[in-house]
Amino acid sequence: MINSRLKEACGIFGIFGHEDAARITYLGLYALQHRGQESAGIVVSDGKRLKGYLKMGLVPEIFNEENLKELTGNRAIGHVRYSTTGSSEVKNAQPFKVDYFRGSLAVAHNGNLVNTNELRQRLEKAGSIFQSTMDSEIIVHLLAKSKSATLEDALVESLPKLKGAYSLLLLTQDQMIGIRDPHGFRPLCLGKLNGAYILSSETCALDLIQAEYVREVEPGEIIIIGKKGMHSLKPFAPARPSLCIFEFIYFARPDSHVFGESVYLVRKRLGRELALEKPVEFDLVIPMPDSGTCAALGFAEASGIPFEMGITRNHYVGRTFIQPSQASRDLGVKVKSNPVKDVIKNKRIVVIEDSIVRGTTSKIRMRNLREAGAKEVHMRVSCPPHRYPCYYGIDFPTREELIASSHSVEEISKFIGLDTLGYLSLDGMIKAMSFPKENFCLSCFDGKYPVK
Amino acid sequence: MINSRLKEACGIFGIFGHEDAARITYLGLYALQHRGQESAGIVVSDGKRLKGYLKMGLVPEIFNEENLKELTGNRAIGHVRYSTTGSSEVKNAQPFKVDYFRGSLAVAHNGNLVNTNELRQRLEKAGSIFQSTMDSEIIVHLLAKSKSATLEDALVESLPKLKGAYSLLLLTQDQMIGIRDPHGFRPLCLGKLNGAYILSSETCALDLIQAEYVREVEPGEIIIIGKKGMHSLKPFAPARPSLCIFEFIYFARPDSHVFGESVYLVRKRLGRELALEKPVEFDLVIPMPDSGTCAALGFAEASGIPFEMGITRNHYVGRTFIQPSQASRDLGVKVKSNPVKDVIKNKRIVVIEDSIVRGTTSKIRMRNLREAGAKEVHMRVSCPPHRYPCYYGIDFPTREELIASSHSVEEISKFIGLDTLGYLSLDGMIKAMSFPKENFCLSCFDGKYPVK
Amino acid sequence: MINSRLKEACGIFGIFGHEDAARITYLGLYALQHRGQESAGIVVSDGKRLKGYLKMGLVPEIFNEENLKELTGNRAIGHVRYSTTGSSEVKNAQPFKVDYFRGSLAVAHNGNLVNTNELRQRLEKAGSIFQSTMDSEIIVHLLAKSKSATLEDALVESLPKLKGAYSLLLLTQDQMIGIRDPHGFRPLCLGKLNGAYILSSETCALDLIQAEYVREVEPGEIIIIGKKGMHSLKPFAPARPSLCIFEFIYFARPDSHVFGESVYLVRKRLGRELALEKPVEFDLVIPMPDSGTCAALGFAEASGIPFEMGITRNHYVGRTFIQPSQASRDLGVKVKSNPVKDVIKNKRIVVIEDSIVRGTTSKIRMRNLREAGAKEVHMRVSCPPHRYPCYYGIDFPTREELIASSHSVEEISKFIGLDTLGYLSLDGMIKAMSFPKENFCLSCFDGKYPVK
Amino acid sequence: MINSRLKEACGIFGIFGHEDAARITYLGLYALQHRGQESAGIVVSDGKRLKGYLKMGLVPEIFNEENLKELTGNRAIGHVRYSTTGSSEVKNAQPFKVDYFRGSLAVAHNGNLVNTNELRQRLEKAGSIFQSTMDSEIIVHLLAKSKSATLEDALVESLPKLKGAYSLLLLTQDQMIGIRDPHGFRPLCLGKLNGAYILSSETCALDLIQAEYVREVEPGEIIIIGKKGMHSLKPFAPARPSLCIFEFIYFARPDSHVFGESVYLVRKRLGRELALEKPVEFDLVIPMPDSGTCAALGFAEASGIPFEMGITRNHYVGRTFIQPSQASRDLGVKVKSNPVKDVIKNKRIVVIEDSIVRGTTSKIRMRNLREAGAKEVHMRVSCPPHRYPCYYGIDFPTREELIASSHSVEEISKFIGLDTLGYLSLDGMIKAMSFPKENFCLSCFDGKYPVK
Repeated sequence: MINSRLKEACGIFGIFGHEDAARITYLGLYALQHRGQESAGIVVSDGKRLKGYLKMGLVPEIFNEENLKELTGNRAIGHVRYSTTGSSEVKNAQPFKVDYFRGSLAVAHNGNLVNTNELRQRLEKAGSIFQSTMDSEIIVHLLAKSKSATLEDALVESLPKLKGAYSLLLLTQDQMIGIRDPHGFRPLCLGKLNGAYILSSETCALDLIQAEYVREVEPGEIIIIGKKGMHSLKPFAPARPSLCIFEFIYFARPDSHVFGESVYLVRKRLGRELALEKPVEFDLVIPMPDSGTCAALGFAEASGIPFEMGITRNHYVGRTFIQPSQASRDLGVKVKSNPVKDVIKNKRIVVIEDSIVRGTTSKIRMRNLREAGAKEVHMRVSCPPHRYPCYYGIDFPTREELIASSHSVEEISKFIGLDTLGYLSLDGMIKAMSFPKENFCLSCFDGKYPVK
Repeated sequence: MINSRLKEACGIFGIFGHEDAARITYLGLYALQHRGQESAGIVVSDGKRLKGYLKMGLVPEIFNEENLKELTGNRAIGHVRYSTTGSSEVKNAQPFKVDYFRGSLAVAHNGNLVNTNELRQRLEKAGSIFQSTMDSEIIVHLLAKSKSATLEDALVESLPKLKGAYSLLLLTQDQMIGIRDPHGFRPLCLGKLNGAYILSSETCALDLIQAEYVREVEPGEIIIIGKKGMHSLKPFAPARPSLCIFEFIYFARPDSHVFGESVYLVRKRLGRELALEKPVEFDLVIPMPDSGTCAALGFAEASGIPFEMGITRNHYVGRTFIQPSQASRDLGVKVKSNPVKDVIKNKRIVVIEDSIVRGTTSKIRMRNLREAGAKEVHMRVSCPPHRYPCYYGIDFPTREELIASSHSVEEISKFIGLDTLGYLSLDGMIKAMSFPKENFCLSCFDGKYPVK
Repeated sequence: MINSRLKEACGIFGIFGHEDAARITYLGLYALQHRGQESAGIVVSDGKRLKGYLKMGLVPEIFNEENLKELTGNRAIGHVRYSTTGSSEVKNAQPFKVDYFRGSLAVAHNGNLVNTNELRQRLEKAGSIFQSTMDSEIIVHLLAKSKSATLEDALVESLPKLKGAYSLLLLTQDQMIGIRDPHGFRPLCLGKLNGAYILSSETCALDLIQAEYVREVEPGEIIIIGKKGMHSLKPFAPARPSLCIFEFIYFARPDSHVFGESVYLVRKRLGRELALEKPVEFDLVIPMPDSGTCAALGFAEASGIPFEMGITRNHYVGRTFIQPSQASRDLGVKVKSNPVKDVIKNKRIVVIEDSIVRGTTSKIRMRNLREAGAKEVHMRVSCPPHRYPCYYGIDFPTREELIASSHSVEEISKFIGLDTLGYLSLDGMIKAMSFPKENFCLSCFDGKYPVK
Repeated sequence: MINSRLKEACGIFGIFGHEDAARITYLGLYALQHRGQESAGIVVSDGKRLKGYLKMGLVPEIFNEENLKELTGNRAIGHVRYSTTGSSEVKNAQPFKVDYFRGSLAVAHNGNLVNTNELRQRLEKAGSIFQSTMDSEIIVHLLAKSKSATLEDALVESLPKLKGAYSLLLLTQDQMIGIRDPHGFRPLCLGKLNGAYILSSETCALDLIQAEYVREVEPGEIIIIGKKGMHSLKPFAPARPSLCIFEFIYFARPDSHVFGESVYLVRKRLGRELALEKPVEFDLVIPMPDSGTCAALGFAEASGIPFEMGITRNHYVGRTFIQPSQASRDLGVKVKSNPVKDVIKNKRIVVIEDSIVRGTTSKIRMRNLREAGAKEVHMRVSCPPHRYPCYYGIDFPTREELIASSHSVEEISKFIGLDTLGYLSLDGMIKAMSFPKENFCLSCFDGKYPVK
């Protein structure tokens, strides 16, 4: 799946106790860029006050020597965002920074709350004003309303009111706090670099700065980092873990660990299961670049049939694309990827995808493969059909737009124009994981929502 | 090899007889973007006058609905550029457009002339003034000095004075002309789209717009396209063909044909030859993304050993990167690619590269692989050592900077920190091609320059 | 006085009931641009929701066809700002827009509160969070905390808590409200255009859009405009009026009426008083362009001595100016204004200024006049010496920086390098006004602050 | 006349022998900005090579610390431009810089040639190519074609071929050359600053940098400045001087000297003559800001009737202005200037203009004055009617658009809506000058063109 279709939630990164905190955070966001390309921001603390820089755009476009130089202080948190809630404005960029009675506070949020309307109405009734549509603003209002003297106590009091998915980073003048919701929908890991503590959505950010991976922040855990070191709270009632399985299938970078596991290896195992479960007679395995590559390698390995990069991806595609007036509708798709005719011609090919959302792009791609000379075109998808929307931070389309919510596999295959189509089964998908089924949120597949 | 090290010459594209000429050319340049990322330009003709738009930057950044709408006319030529000669200014962007006694003329050039100083001095003595340092300006001056009544005759008279590599597109009010130098260093192919003629550096541009591939423009051929159709001249004395073999190894997109051959298949064969020629005991083949992928697939196939995408490439890397003050030097390299630890750990790996220029980046990458846990790191390069600079349009460093010009394979292996290093032999490389050795320019490997 | 020295507070403009509300507001801000050049913003309401566009810069730089087209709705308020409180960030641009329990609300503020710290602390203790340092945010928090069902009642309850200067515009989905504080420090007038109500800081904005001037909003008056028309409240205890006299002397445009009076005519009378009060033997009267022109005309008229534009102002001066390394310090001043040598040479001249703040710029200017050949250089200032800072919305320097706070007229004259210096007396200044002395805030001259 | 109606030709400035040459030139262009607001450029020489920076926009927008720092060298020439010939593109920005057989050369041109077509055709026939539509390019081609060994000789040979108006600055690696055409249409003066030579269109640029005024460059003079000092050639046959009288009336800054005379004083004398020649019963004299101010002062002085700034100019008007859809056409005019009602009401006023071109803007302005309450509105223009286009560098409209070319004074008065209209007579205008009538180009008034 080309990554413009599914919008990733967000990525968060923070560091405490490093004299180059803003630049390290900039690097961390660079590594997490795939989790959000709409806006990015960094807030630093020098122990006295918070300073921030936030803007629409990509990390390398936003930050430069000049604005990073202004961000002085040895602790920082950062955020890359693709809007899940909150429209696309700089007002909705994060980290969200305010002053309140305990001092200054900045919040970076990855996930999605499901009881925002209710919380917001209650807060407005109590006199709160809202300048954005971000969940983070709600969280900060709750913390401001809590009479507890310390932020720590306020968190223990307020967080249970939040329903939904949240991996959070908080920065005050003298503390950095990392939080995962009790279900642990979104990942968050802890690292260290020369004595400085780091919190990050994925381990690829640790790799880039050559930091050491320490462990996952646990579901329901609050990690508080201050000058005297780190301590951890678990104020929540125990809850069923609900790790987002789609982090493995599509979101995370293959060189990352999420939830403590290698994304690359999980994807290869998904491909292997898929080959065993949905076999077919064919000549070549071809990944849908770039996200289908690992599964395709596993598929090829298990089936003993050659793997080829039969679709080339153009990496120079910009954010805008001008459609010639009389051109076919397919151009927007073609400019991103092109079949390699000489590889495909007269071959029976299996294309490995990580998911089918609306099916319209796949349809164009498959037609292109046939026009390039493929004799048979089969597709295998490394997870079950997506039938239900996600309420925990992934910007799936509405249920109506999900082709699998209203069409059988047979119908989808026909719509896309395939010879055969096979999805990995739920059990097959779980087999590729190291955790038991009960640990995952599978709601986009089975409609069983862990919260609400 | 990551594509910031070697600077590609340029890409050219033109169309004659299509009412959407500017937009089609924009798409053509989009597909040829990998051949030049510094500037781009389009010049159109409406039969009466030429209009152009040129700017520094990438194709999707430069062109928009507004400026494309201004470029009216049913014929157009375009250019993407990475400076080989001429410094990095908009004055040196192409196509180069002038008025002279025959009317208006625009020129787009891919290649590099070797007798520019001599030509320029002679022209200046005869009263010419120069506003840029581009070869194109010299070519136009020669055409302006020729007393021949027609441009066709002027070309026949002037082109023999040019020494070096040139694939050219010319646009006048009523003609589009495509030219390849007698040695045919750089590619240029002919296509058709609904009756309109197209000239393009690579076929991937034809694929994108769903045009039909007709044939290569031959070395020494001048193709003249006008309202009444196309005709062809071959005014040059026969010369030894000298196709740039590096187009296959590194430059061209894998889904393109250049010189009539599939780049993807050639690269796979290079990998296969490499496996046969320089075998080694190992557990995994890993491509240097993205350019080493095809050769690595061939290498894996021939050696029967698994292929893995053991190095992840970050596609969000911008043009600027801010180095934290106290960070290790490796960061600029790491931000672009990251080893997948779980794949590499405790494995004997072979990395497939397409070339080693200075060796410094390879050194960092190989260290990263070892730090990620690789037990042994071998490298295989899909061509012979680069010992000589290129004078025909590829921006290699000077001879002093080419590590292979002054170091043995053994020394390079040690410098980079490899267990073993193997280059494909010249003969092995030629074996992977469909043409005989005599048809290629191999000067960067053997120092035998076809011209001068 | 050249207008970069004294920073004008702000300008506000609103219209209710005009289908082109955003564009009319854009024009209004265009006319009020002299009151604030740092940022500008417009918020519109279409009866359902508020939409805004705010940015750093000048009105013609910020707004264009595209963003004005987005601002649909037949009511709008706008703001131009020079920061008096709140640092120079887009976060501090106005109108300030929020959602709260009564719906949506936008506030535009001209003036300065003096009890912000106290209010802010009290609000933070009650759970409010602050995202900016603007007075407007405090005002909105107070309105949100009030339990009153209607905004009208909430205003009556909350406004008495504000101390200081405030002319306010509020916009909700269905009302526009204009308010002047009980002392009436800052101007605000009411106009009409084809049935639509207008509120504006100065009448020059009414002139531009050819609206009719109705009357001043009175000190302590709340004007509420809705679909059914306009009504007015006066919920405050009577207070001594304290009109800012500096609006006449320097701030307002000469073609405006403020507080119901012609600025041009007042300035001329100030000049006349000055001529009578501080006569001198001389040949020419010269205004300091552009703000001293009216007073100089009055001065010339009363003294019967010729008026000349002996100092030329360069209107192309941008926001940045690069000082050549070895240039004299005076260049930044000279680039803005230049003496006309032929007019000044060998003449005894009187320069008419509206105020002296630090005296450093005047010093340079007077030296330039002498170098241009003036035989004698006298200065007359159309108000008394500024000895005290302003807390009600004018960005005077601190007391230490005001030269008149620590120097006698004699000393200032010597510092600037004048032959004689004369300030208009307080009584002389009042004589030029139509209101009695008791109606004005004169605190910057006499240190008697009406509030606090 | 507000300066957007008549487009000023250009301004040129150069300095030789100052270590801060680029910055001094930047200042010079700052002072000459009123002569051209479309583009600006500076070319410097460090004795070895020329480097330039040119861009569309205003001087303070184009130049900054960074790009000025790059412009190293102790000699520089600069140019501000409003296109008279050559369309509005950066390709047509000046100084125009080339390499040719004598080395490098940059040219800055103020004026307009009348035989460009003829010269261009001849040059193209001889093999020249043209990249722009600037006169400067033609001049350089002529110099390149001349076989003379030195630039000096080439100038003597080539300049006589040019017909029309040209004040030129040339820069080579080691010389700066200033030239005025034999008729001396456009001004050019010589100054000195600490031993460095300066050439400038107007003296206001000398004032700003505190340079000494030496003298005018004479019509037909070539001043050559090199390391060894300055010398002067006069290779032309004597010609009738044809100073552009409109430089006095409108173009030049009032604080400048042009052609050795004070612009301010000339304008006052024009006003005085006008009062004597075209008297009227009235109460007030009002200048059309800013260009009518000096003449209005002279008019008031001679008639003994009060002068008032009855029209306020808004100096924040940007380059774009968005017209509300249903607004009256007058808004674009009103946003720039506004009558001061209290001054004008019930008064018989005389408005002093420097010229009427189409009459449409004047019509709107006069209507505004009447709406503001003026009892009678008279207009007096400080020069005769403009009946003929200018071919020497002023961008007047075509003859058809000049209202005076086809309408009597009576008709114009009626069209604009005046009570009376009076133009200064040709003889009256000449009386205000210090030179005899024969020294001026009066072609825009009398149609007698000195050249062609």
